[in-house]
Amino acid sequence: MGNLLGAIKPAIDLSKQAGNESFLFIADQHSLTTLKDGATRREYTRAVAATWLAFGLDTTKNTFWRQSRVPEHTELAWYLNCFTPVPMLMNATSYKDKVEKFGERSASAGLFTYPVLQAADILLYDANIVPVGKDQRQHLEMTRDIASSFNHEYGTEVFVIPEAQIDERIMTIPGIDGQKMSKSYNNYIDIFLPENELNKVIKKILSDSTPLEEPKNPDTDITFQLYSLMADAGQTEAMRQKYLAGGYGYGHAKKELYELIITRFAAERERFNYFMSNEEALENELQAGEEKARAVAGATIRRVREVLGYN
Amino acid sequence: MGNLLGAIKPAIDLSKQAGNESFLFIADQHSLTTLKDGATRREYTRAVAATWLAFGLDTTKNTFWRQSRVPEHTELAWYLNCFTPVPMLMNATSYKDKVEKFGERSASAGLFTYPVLQAADILLYDANIVPVGKDQRQHLEMTRDIASSFNHEYGTEVFVIPEAQIDERIMTIPGIDGQKMSKSYNNYIDIFLPENELNKVIKKILSDSTPLEEPKNPDTDITFQLYSLMADAGQTEAMRQKYLAGGYGYGHAKKELYELIITRFAAERERFNYFMSNEEALENELQAGEEKARAVAGATIRRVREVLGYN
Repeated sequence: MGNLLGAIKPAIDLSKQAGNESFLFIADQHSLTTLKDGATRREYTRAVAATWLAFGLDTTKNTFWRQSRVPEHTELAWYLNCFTPVPMLMNATSYKDKVEKFGERSASAGLFTYPVLQAADILLYDANIVPVGKDQRQHLEMTRDIASSFNHEYGTEVFVIPEAQIDERIMTIPGIDGQKMSKSYNNYIDIFLPENELNKVIKKILSDSTPLEEPKNPDTDITFQLYSLMADAGQTEAMRQKYLAGGYGYGHAKKELYELIITRFAAERERFNYFMSNEEALENELQAGEEKARAVAGATIRRVREVLGYN
Repeated sequence: MGNLLGAIKPAIDLSKQAGNESFLFIADQHSLTTLKDGATRREYTRAVAATWLAFGLDTTKNTFWRQSRVPEHTELAWYLNCFTPVPMLMNATSYKDKVEKFGERSASAGLFTYPVLQAADILLYDANIVPVGKDQRQHLEMTRDIASSFNHEYGTEVFVIPEAQIDERIMTIPGIDGQKMSKSYNNYIDIFLPENELNKVIKKILSDSTPLEEPKNPDTDITFQLYSLMADAGQTEAMRQKYLAGGYGYGHAKKELYELIITRFAAERERFNYFMSNEEALENELQAGEEKARAVAGATIRRVREVLGYN
C-alpha cells in the first residue's frame, strides 16, 4: 500500500498525462545491493510487475521492463564510473548512513556505486523529467553532474541533462504499527492478499484503548489515516463523524477499511491474480517492454561508444 | 618493446604449451580509467591487436577479443560489486598510490572499482591460471576473495577460483633514458616504426661520454642491455667483447641494435603492417574471437543469473 500510494499510482497518473511517455523499470539489479536470495528476487520481481500491470499501466504507450534484461544499464554504468569522482560518492547520503550505522565493512562497492548505475538508468533513455522523492534528490543531482562532465569532456550533448520533478504529494504512509510503512519494518499492508489474510493484517493495526462508547480522535489514529488515503471525501468525512460521535469502535473502522480495500481495488486484485497465475502473460508484457527498452538504450549506447572510441 | 618482451612474448609462449588454451583480451574498457580520447583509443586498440597477431598468436586455438564487445564483462562486474566490501578496494595499491600522489578528487569510481571489473574478466572464462606480474598479485587475491564470497553465499561453485602464476621472468626493460620503459614516460622503442623513424629513436638512447677508442662497460650501458634482451647468446657475447676491447663506439652499438630489430622482427613487422593497413582482416580476426568469447562468457553469466534470480 505504501509503494502503491507513494510511487505506483502517481507514476501511472503521470504516464497518462497527454504528451508524456514514461519509462518505468523494475530495478532488479539495484536490488542485489540488499537482497541476495535468488528465489525471493524472482518472486518479488513477478509481484512488482503484476502490481504495475494490475494498476493499469498502459504498456502500449509506455515502456516497462526488467533492468537485468537490458545489459546497456551495467555497460553504461562502467563508462560513467570513469567520470565520477570517488569523493562525490562518499558524500552520498545512502552510503554515509549505512557506514555510520553498520560500519565501513557493511558497505559493498555495489552500494557505493549505485548512484552511478542510477545515472545510467536515467541517461540511457534521454529522460527529460525524473519524478523523485526528496530522498532521491541528491542522486539526481549526481546524475546531472556526471552527465555534464561527460558532455563537457567530449564537447557534445551525448546525454540529455534531466530535470528533477519533486513530487510534493509523495507522502509518508503509516504502517500498521505507526512507523513509516516499509517492507523492511514488516509493518505493511499488501492489498493483494487473499481476503482472510488481508483481514488479519488489518486487525493488527495499532490503536489506543479508548472504550468503544467514547468519542475518538481520528487525526491520531492509524486506521483512520489509512482509510482517508484511499476513500473519497464523502466517505472520509462520514468516518470522521463516527469517530467524533462515540459509540464507534476501532474494530468497526478496521472493518470499513477492509471493505474499502476489497471494493475499491476489486478489479486490480483480479488483474493481479491473473498475472501472478499466468506467467506467460506476464512474460509477454515484460519481453515486449524489454525489446522497446533495448531499442532506445541501444541508440544511446551507440552514441556513447562512438565518442569513447569503441565503435 | 617493453610490452612485447615483458608481456606479449611470454603470453604467446604460454599459449603454445601443450594442454593450454589461452584467453587474451584487449582491456579497452579498463583503459577508460586513464584515457578519455576516443580516436586515440581506437588507434591503440588496432595497434595492440595487430601486435599480438603479428607475433603469431594462434587465434584458432586461443580466444582473443576486445573487452568492449562482450557486455558480460560489465554486467558481471556489477554483480561482483555487490559482493565486494568497500574497504577491500580502499586497500588496493593502485588506488592508494593515485590518491597519495594526486589527491582524492583525482580518483574516479572507475579506478576505484577496476579490480572488480578485472575479477569479472577472469571469472567469466573459468580461468584456472592467471599469469601476473608482481604488481598485479594483489588484484588476483581480490578476485579470489570476491569469487569465494560469492560461491559461499550460494553454497555452490559458480566460479572457478583462479591461481596466480607469478612470472619470475618478467623483467623491467630499460627505456631510452634508462628509466623503466613505459608509454607514459615516452621513452619507449616501438619496433614497428618505419625504418628511418626507428633509427632516429635508437640514436636517442642515452649513453655516457667515454671516447670511441676507450673500452666501455657493457653492463651499465642501455644500448647493450636492450641488445642482449633480443640477441642470441653468441651475438651478445660478441658485442660484449667489442665493448671491452675499445675502438667501438656507442654509435656502432646502436647501429647493430637497429639492424637486429629490423632483421629479427622482419616477419612480424610485415604482418603488423598488413593488419594495420587491412582493417577488414583485423576485424575478421577480432570478431571471430568475440563470438568465441561470448559463448564462454554467456555460459558463465547464465549460471550467475540463475543463482541471483535473474533467469
